[in-house]
Amino acid sequence: MKCRKCGATAAINMRQHKLALCADHFLEWVPEQTQRFVEKYKMFTLEDKILVAVSGGKDSLSLWDILNRLGYHADGLYIGLGIDGRRSPSGEGIGYSDESHRLAEAFAAERGLTLRVVEVEQTYGATIPELAVISNRGRDKPCSVCGLNKRYIMNRAAHDGGYTVLATGHNLDDEAAVLMQNTMNWAGGYLVRQAPVLEATQPGLARKVKPLCRFYEREMAAYAIVRGLDYIYDECPHAVGSTTIYYKEVLNQMEEHRPGAKLQFYLSFLQAKEQGLFALKPGDAELHACDKCGQPTTAPGPEGCSFCRLWDKVRAVKGARLPASAAITDPVEA
Amino acid sequence: MKCRKCGATAAINMRQHKLALCADHFLEWVPEQTQRFVEKYKMFTLEDKILVAVSGGKDSLSLWDILNRLGYHADGLYIGLGIDGRRSPSGEGIGYSDESHRLAEAFAAERGLTLRVVEVEQTYGATIPELAVISNRGRDKPCSVCGLNKRYIMNRAAHDGGYTVLATGHNLDDEAAVLMQNTMNWAGGYLVRQAPVLEATQPGLARKVKPLCRFYEREMAAYAIVRGLDYIYDECPHAVGSTTIYYKEVLNQMEEHRPGAKLQFYLSFLQAKEQGLFALKPGDAELHACDKCGQPTTAPGPEGCSFCRLWDKVRAVKGARLPASAAITDPVEA
Repeated sequence: MKCRKCGATAAINMRQHKLALCADHFLEWVPEQTQRFVEKYKMFTLEDKILVAVSGGKDSLSLWDILNRLGYHADGLYIGLGIDGRRSPSGEGIGYSDESHRLAEAFAAERGLTLRVVEVEQTYGATIPELAVISNRGRDKPCSVCGLNKRYIMNRAAHDGGYTVLATGHNLDDEAAVLMQNTMNWAGGYLVRQAPVLEATQPGLARKVKPLCRFYEREMAAYAIVRGLDYIYDECPHAVGSTTIYYKEVLNQMEEHRPGAKLQFYLSFLQAKEQGLFALKPGDAELHACDKCGQPTTAPGPEGCSFCRLWDKVRAVKGARLPASAAITDPVEA
Repeated sequence: MKCRKCGATAAINMRQHKLALCADHFLEWVPEQTQRFVEKYKMFTLEDKILVAVSGGKDSLSLWDILNRLGYHADGLYIGLGIDGRRSPSGEGIGYSDESHRLAEAFAAERGLTLRVVEVEQTYGATIPELAVISNRGRDKPCSVCGLNKRYIMNRAAHDGGYTVLATGHNLDDEAAVLMQNTMNWAGGYLVRQAPVLEATQPGLARKVKPLCRFYEREMAAYAIVRGLDYIYDECPHAVGSTTIYYKEVLNQMEEHRPGAKLQFYLSFLQAKEQGLFALKPGDAELHACDKCGQPTTAPGPEGCSFCRLWDKVRAVKGARLPASAAITDPVEA
């Protein structure tokens, strides 16, 4: 297989695009395509101040790298979740959060980039796994509690830090798996909100973008490896057996049966939505400022938003360490 | 495993419903459930004159049997497609259409029911496989041409015969597979039209219903076998390798992973649609009478509807045998 651009031996063969490229041209192709997606979906411009959610994995570090290469103003946000770390009861584990944090810091330091850090335990008083146990929400699986926290913290950090855009590293496999999950249950509210760009329809909401949403997971892995990025290989230990991973496997089988199936599934969804298939619109849910933290919420009330209610429950059990309104976005310069 | 109704040994264990039944109670349960679906989706009443599309397979014969047992006025319609029959060039084959026809006739004769028959070759001048070759539409796969013909002939037979309802034997596996296929491509027009009942929104359109749409394929096979129905076991030879069969396999894997997945997929779709997920409505496409045959069509013009255009092409090649306006619904009493 020869590189389509220069005829050299192709290191990366993408059957799904009927395209093979050598390593050098692949490293050019990825940012070019990213720029094309950024423009096509009107994600942001050079004037925007972008906050990239950085987990230390291949997708988010690649995204930060690409945006940097393309000349965008992009700072990083690392959220320390306290997963599988020193505090693990068994004393074992891969130190998932510690290792992720180290890699994100190293990435920023090598490139002179700004990494903002929010440690959930230091800021709010418990790690995510502790939070799941104490709150009785997802005792076996902290994923739903984790998602709630990450969404809240990302949104708040972007808003408080004066960023115009919050970027995440979701790739096509992530998006297609979530789409399939929401489709198998016909979860209308989620379907209408899934998009490369989620506009900040109301005050206090950050504009969310997914510049990698059209890249296959294997393409992003290839980018990170060929580009020599040092990222955490392990999945979050709690993700094992998750529904998303199950649907990724189903979609991988379909992709095996017909290369390009995954991309067609996602793109035809975006197109159908663009053409007005759905009656509901993403911004239809009315948001109000939470009485406690001021962040936007769909379910206002004296007990606060779901984030505040969750942490109030924890404080009732453990005793408060920090107020919910603590500033969480003091930058930690790398 | 014991029968939930009588405690006898259960012959049929339906994990998807967490229900096991003995043969006798299963034979009662199926019509009871059918009646429940008929009422829930407002399909028809005892006053309706129903035409059941009968292929000779387990689903359509079971449907006819069930409607008969429930006391409905239901005649049968058999469409002779000329598939894998005497005229097969190789002289081999299972005689799919001949055998189906024989079984449908025998079923009707044993019960004193009326079977209407339309032989495509005698009525229009070519078998379906010939039609596919001559028209250059699906030379390898006559399925799309076959579908077009069946939809046209069923609608016309129902309309010309004065039937108020056209019933087909589509089961849950059929519906879920088509739903998945249309979802993987996000074919909005098809998605909004898929339902247990398709109303006759315009003159000339038959009201279409699928009373078995909530039964698993294996449940219908069990019904036909336990009830002692003589049906054709073979799939249509052209269906081998079809997209629908592929998606049935994908869904069977999901069902294996989580019993009930198929039913949830279909029911949550119906519910989401009921709750207004889609902006489009099934009746949004405007229909006009075809200039040639008078049947409703979305694409009117001097060359007629897609059915007329297809057969005109065939007549240009083979010479006309019969006019397109020939009566096709003279009943053949069994």
